[in-house]
Amino acid sequence: MPPPQNLERRRALADAAIEVLGRSGIHGLSHRSVDERAGLPPGTASNYFRSRDALLQAAADRVIELHKQDMAAAANGTSPPIDRDMLVELIALSLHHAATEQRVRYLAIYELTLEATRRPHLHEALAQLAEPTLDFTVQMHRDLGLETSRERVRTLITLYGAALFALVTRPPETLTLEEARTLTRAMVDGTLT
Amino acid sequence: MPPPQNLERRRALADAAIEVLGRSGIHGLSHRSVDERAGLPPGTASNYFRSRDALLQAAADRVIELHKQDMAAAANGTSPPIDRDMLVELIALSLHHAATEQRVRYLAIYELTLEATRRPHLHEALAQLAEPTLDFTVQMHRDLGLETSRERVRTLITLYGAALFALVTRPPETLTLEEARTLTRAMVDGTLT
Repeated sequence: MPPPQNLERRRALADAAIEVLGRSGIHGLSHRSVDERAGLPPGTASNYFRSRDALLQAAADRVIELHKQDMAAAANGTSPPIDRDMLVELIALSLHHAATEQRVRYLAIYELTLEATRRPHLHEALAQLAEPTLDFTVQMHRDLGLETSRERVRTLITLYGAALFALVTRPPETLTLEEARTLTRAMVDGTLT
Repeated sequence: MPPPQNLERRRALADAAIEVLGRSGIHGLSHRSVDERAGLPPGTASNYFRSRDALLQAAADRVIELHKQDMAAAANGTSPPIDRDMLVELIALSLHHAATEQRVRYLAIYELTLEATRRPHLHEALAQLAEPTLDFTVQMHRDLGLETSRERVRTLITLYGAALFALVTRPPETLTLEEARTLTRAMVDGTLT
């Protein structure tokens, strides 16, 4: 295990990589642009992440970590068992928050996803995040007192990620919570029959 | 109106732009790479499309045109009125076909969609395609004997485009028609209550 200071530094660099990806796209990403964005001396990012692939992977890991933290925080204020309307509201709020306040972060993950179609190594790295995220989400459903099957949670995650792409690529000022609710209602009603 | 030969040439250049976008990403796109891909003399693409924005726009228009042609062809073999199961099958086949045989084409449109978050002009161009595509799809529902409201068709289009992103960014050999059906069933059941 690296000492805590290193972990903090790695995190700061991964956060900077997410900002660069989300704001400038995949081709804006380099060790140099990440150093600049993080306000760290030239050479720092390449010291922590030797290759550009390692940097991309760190950004992907960090987005998933942050996403889980946000999910847990949102569910935390809710007492189980919840009903379907409460689930819709919880997911709609998460979707709207992700597409507005956290827009840059999720644009970054979609940049990575498209780049991964041309980089098998990055695809592997992203694919390895899928099952733990599914486990985590299934557990969240259980904690909320919901019996949603693993396969249905999988469908819900796919539709959520997909709907988020549609929202996050639109100008943030045009997004309403009402629209997030409409999309979520369709996803949840269609999945939890 | 330009003479027919020009229209054909424009179409060939737009098709080449789609191939370049889908295979190499947004940063692979230039007048030169489009000329090369189309097998046309250097300078042809810039003769037809003065700016890179004009080239991007032509690619976007062409993807939508091709998508409508495919939708119309798929619906053509179906006699109205159709029931919900037939609608699910029609959409699932379309989703699977788009994510496999037409993968490069749809990767191109997602490249454009992400680039548009950084280029307001391109965003405007893409946004202008939305309402005519909605009109066209509502009309298709009517032709199939379905009374789906305009708002519900809009939700369905958003979820379809979104689910397609999820599928098209995965390795094509991992995609099954069964998975397209599962996603489509959720989208349709959730939208057409």
